[in-house]
Amino acid sequence: MDLTKMKDPKFLKQLSVEELDELAKHIRQFLIEKLSVTGGHLGANLGVVELTLALHKHFNSPKDKLIFDVGHQSYIHKMLTGRTDQFDTLRQFKGLCGFPKMSESEHDVWETGHSSTSLSAAMGMAVARDMKNEDHAVVPIIGDGALTGGMALEALNHIGHEKKKLTVILNDNEMSIAGNVGALHKALGRMRSAGKYNRVKDEIEYLMKRIPAVGGKIAQTAERVKDSMKYFMVPGMLFEEFGFTYFGPVDGHDFKDLEENLQYASKTDGPVLIHVITKKGKGYQPAESDKKDRWHGVGPYKIDSGEKIKPVDNKPAWSQVVSDAVEKIAEKDDRVAVITPAMILGSKLEKFQKHFPDRLFDVGIAEQHAVTMAAGMATQGMKPFVAIYSTFLQRAYDQMVHDVCRQKLNVAFGIDRAGLVGADGETHQGVFDIAFLRHLPNIVLMMPKDENECQHMVHTALSYNDGPIALRFPRGNGLGVHMDKEFQQLPIGKWEVLEKGNDAVILTFGTTIEMALSASKKLKKSGVNVEVVNARFLKPLDNEMLHDIMKRNVPILTLEEAVLQGGFGSSILEFAEENSYYPRLKRMGIPDQYIEHGSVNKLLEEIGLTEDQVITEINHLLHPQKNNIKRA
Amino acid sequence: MDLTKMKDPKFLKQLSVEELDELAKHIRQFLIEKLSVTGGHLGANLGVVELTLALHKHFNSPKDKLIFDVGHQSYIHKMLTGRTDQFDTLRQFKGLCGFPKMSESEHDVWETGHSSTSLSAAMGMAVARDMKNEDHAVVPIIGDGALTGGMALEALNHIGHEKKKLTVILNDNEMSIAGNVGALHKALGRMRSAGKYNRVKDEIEYLMKRIPAVGGKIAQTAERVKDSMKYFMVPGMLFEEFGFTYFGPVDGHDFKDLEENLQYASKTDGPVLIHVITKKGKGYQPAESDKKDRWHGVGPYKIDSGEKIKPVDNKPAWSQVVSDAVEKIAEKDDRVAVITPAMILGSKLEKFQKHFPDRLFDVGIAEQHAVTMAAGMATQGMKPFVAIYSTFLQRAYDQMVHDVCRQKLNVAFGIDRAGLVGADGETHQGVFDIAFLRHLPNIVLMMPKDENECQHMVHTALSYNDGPIALRFPRGNGLGVHMDKEFQQLPIGKWEVLEKGNDAVILTFGTTIEMALSASKKLKKSGVNVEVVNARFLKPLDNEMLHDIMKRNVPILTLEEAVLQGGFGSSILEFAEENSYYPRLKRMGIPDQYIEHGSVNKLLEEIGLTEDQVITEINHLLHPQKNNIKRA
Repeated sequence: MDLTKMKDPKFLKQLSVEELDELAKHIRQFLIEKLSVTGGHLGANLGVVELTLALHKHFNSPKDKLIFDVGHQSYIHKMLTGRTDQFDTLRQFKGLCGFPKMSESEHDVWETGHSSTSLSAAMGMAVARDMKNEDHAVVPIIGDGALTGGMALEALNHIGHEKKKLTVILNDNEMSIAGNVGALHKALGRMRSAGKYNRVKDEIEYLMKRIPAVGGKIAQTAERVKDSMKYFMVPGMLFEEFGFTYFGPVDGHDFKDLEENLQYASKTDGPVLIHVITKKGKGYQPAESDKKDRWHGVGPYKIDSGEKIKPVDNKPAWSQVVSDAVEKIAEKDDRVAVITPAMILGSKLEKFQKHFPDRLFDVGIAEQHAVTMAAGMATQGMKPFVAIYSTFLQRAYDQMVHDVCRQKLNVAFGIDRAGLVGADGETHQGVFDIAFLRHLPNIVLMMPKDENECQHMVHTALSYNDGPIALRFPRGNGLGVHMDKEFQQLPIGKWEVLEKGNDAVILTFGTTIEMALSASKKLKKSGVNVEVVNARFLKPLDNEMLHDIMKRNVPILTLEEAVLQGGFGSSILEFAEENSYYPRLKRMGIPDQYIEHGSVNKLLEEIGLTEDQVITEINHLLHPQKNNIKRA
Repeated sequence: MDLTKMKDPKFLKQLSVEELDELAKHIRQFLIEKLSVTGGHLGANLGVVELTLALHKHFNSPKDKLIFDVGHQSYIHKMLTGRTDQFDTLRQFKGLCGFPKMSESEHDVWETGHSSTSLSAAMGMAVARDMKNEDHAVVPIIGDGALTGGMALEALNHIGHEKKKLTVILNDNEMSIAGNVGALHKALGRMRSAGKYNRVKDEIEYLMKRIPAVGGKIAQTAERVKDSMKYFMVPGMLFEEFGFTYFGPVDGHDFKDLEENLQYASKTDGPVLIHVITKKGKGYQPAESDKKDRWHGVGPYKIDSGEKIKPVDNKPAWSQVVSDAVEKIAEKDDRVAVITPAMILGSKLEKFQKHFPDRLFDVGIAEQHAVTMAAGMATQGMKPFVAIYSTFLQRAYDQMVHDVCRQKLNVAFGIDRAGLVGADGETHQGVFDIAFLRHLPNIVLMMPKDENECQHMVHTALSYNDGPIALRFPRGNGLGVHMDKEFQQLPIGKWEVLEKGNDAVILTFGTTIEMALSASKKLKKSGVNVEVVNARFLKPLDNEMLHDIMKRNVPILTLEEAVLQGGFGSSILEFAEENSYYPRLKRMGIPDQYIEHGSVNKLLEEIGLTEDQVITEINHLLHPQKNNIKRA
């Protein structure tokens, strides 16, 4: 079967259940093969093969709007809409995006990456449809994990209120990225085990008839019991309470069951929720049998054994360094606890969890709650450590402003995936956190040069008692440096000179330090001595060192893997302005645009964050063209 | 009765119901009198007099933690904990804060201002208590409106999962700041009308016994019906689904009912929710009979008539100017719709709502949903206008990053209460929005100099078709300028010279323009000619004009009522750096600290944002002390 011939999902309408089953098998095989080379979100996609086929068979995309929450499960959708031949380039620079992308296809009507946005987007589209007097379906497909995100719950509440026609597909695979959390999850469990309403409907009616007629005081209660029993027996009463008509649970791998319920739903007015049970990794034994969801997003692997083909790299993962340091500190300080929004695996907290099951709080996909809960703990003298990705902390900006920084509470943050992350692309590049955090009063913000300094920063953060403190660290592995046995306390706001030099100064931190050092080495060969400073505190700045540097009257280059607007470089400009210095200064960093997917090195090259460019800029600063320099 | 003698709420434990009723009466009278002079959140506080007394009688603050969500309803709490004598200074500079404040009293264990944070904070405190093996109650008091905020729902989900002991007081006054919205609201309505569980418990048991024993296939269903019926009949089954034990509904003005349920709750393990029905404005006829909640937060008023004593000001409110302009545009453009997160009154949208009931979407307290729903509408060619306060937009920062700006969707924003707001203090000062928005790619950001330019900006925003665009405008009233009959289209990124001058340039916008013009006038008298520029576009900057100014080699003063770090002034520094200019430049704005409550003028004086300071800075720039200027 040549899957690359699929250009328009309309062809599905002609297929029998047997043919669909056959197609599903081929799609699975294709994905297992392709992703064994490129890597990607295998588990999530294998779980929704039949569901995606059934949706495209029943609905008419792009007239009907299919909205994939999070979006990493849209591979089959991409195949059905003419992109099968691009899977060799999946998640690579200029290649097929791992998430829905409007520029790729008219069938991608909404772009995702972060979870829990689909219901709000769908509501917007439904409102637009009704305002325009159009007639089409709006179909958000949302996982059980994403449903616990605050904005999804806000949307549920509003959708149930407005009663717009909307078909929510709840893709319940009993786990979000890892295991699932929360009362909603338990309620879903009850629904799964309850069996279908239509199976028991007749029985309930029989029972209702046998409740004897009663009079007097008790009559009203009896009536309420009767009226409500049918409603109650619907397993999805939680959703019915929210104003939805509930269908399910539906076997997400059974085309007949899926189609039947999609038919019911289409005939129902107002918002509908179809509760579909799927199995992550379905059809690929190593993924299917993995209880820990290690096949959610994977690198290359051997198809037969399921063995992961890791690039040889014995350097420790940054997340693991952080998590190990927190664990070591927690052994001695029983005020320390870790809070994670559904990222036990990603933040490498499994070992910590095993060691301290009562001091690890996985709150589910709930970043706002995570941050303010930590603030609550801090008011009681605890030492909460919030392990969170840079772009997910964006969800809790107000909680940082209003709860943590304003109350100046001792909450420590480990901001993971800071800087460019590569293959996940635009939605996951952790390039905004300095710009959205450094203008908040009372916060300390730092980034380590290597994993040894990283562990000292964790120690510094958890020893700090004068308000919030955050260390940011990149995705991937450290440098493989020697790790000190004993933790050190870093003096707050003190930088470190890594390389002495009289001709110019590079102020940089984190991932770009290597680039600066290497550029400095090359410049030295041409007789230019550049000082390289590990500006490890992004707030507060090292005022003392800055005064010293500015007084030396040498050119300054700031270098950061973060947005330029309002970033670290700007804080140096601000320092100069505040102190009436007028240095010759150039800022290098991420320009004012969203950065697409691709390898980090390729992306750095694209935006000119390279060693060569550092050398060029230093030379420009040292030998400015006359018409390029104007002074007041 | 001398209420100022109340220092410690312990005295309540000795009081009889009659004495409590008497005290409640005196407290109401006190509040009605005091607030008639100072203004404040009258309605909300009159509604919780008995509830606050009952809580302080039953619990032992500060050992037990009372957490007031939003916090504007904490006046009685403040009175009971020794602050009655400070009410003459309510919400004034250095006076009693209108929200809980740790620095005022050990009884204020958590500070609020924005809604929906109390459950997360409470969960943090409960976790801390259990980790420390302590024993005390944690009691968040949250309104029915605040419950629809995403972070409150995230917290509900997590609390129900963890099963920590926690006593949630749901203060259900059937309206949040205005009417309430959403499916949850409807569910609360059903609970209110359902009557108490314990009233019907016996009757249900009687009925259950009369359901006949059945065998065979149907037996299992019958068992489920029986097991579940009791559970179902609890009116708060929605909360029970979330893992809470529900008590209520309780009459929030009946001490006996309140105490009884607090007793039940204290004897119950795990999380408990007490559903308390209160009446906003209770005990003050003008407030009690107002269905539109105009007594929520008030200025001074005449006690007898309830007539508001307005300062004489016929200038139009900024919010009204914006709302009127949107309405006028909506008449001609049926793609225009307004989205508000529970702020119909605050954003003065009543007239719009009356005119276009189907094009005004009040989504409840749900800022994240509001923004992404607008993004969804924009994908379908609609022209959504999000009316939102500056500090509440903080809640939707990720939605701005991820959904609106990244997808470059045509969503227009009216950012209300930008700049200092005065009496509401720290949590409400709209000083961060420039810093948290201007680093986002694709956004246009502007602020008008007067209400005439404001209406043109609304028109410009709703005509713009190249991505997101926001206008920010201050709290309060405009300047009373002439309003053009026809809307004008402002050229994007073009500033306006208000006053010509050769000696120096002030770049400023919005509220600080008057200050700059007036300083310029005074400087002119001393022979200094200062140019004043209305830098109405904060992004993109007017590059052409900036090049022109920088080439003139004159000193530049940037002036903004917004945070300095990463603010507008910094964007001018960035422009200079990017183009290799070295101007003598000084930035004036809000320093790196949270700004407390007080009149805006007083606050501006405190932080040195004054006409005098502008004159001083201009003179410094023109006559720098030698040791104050260093150049590279």
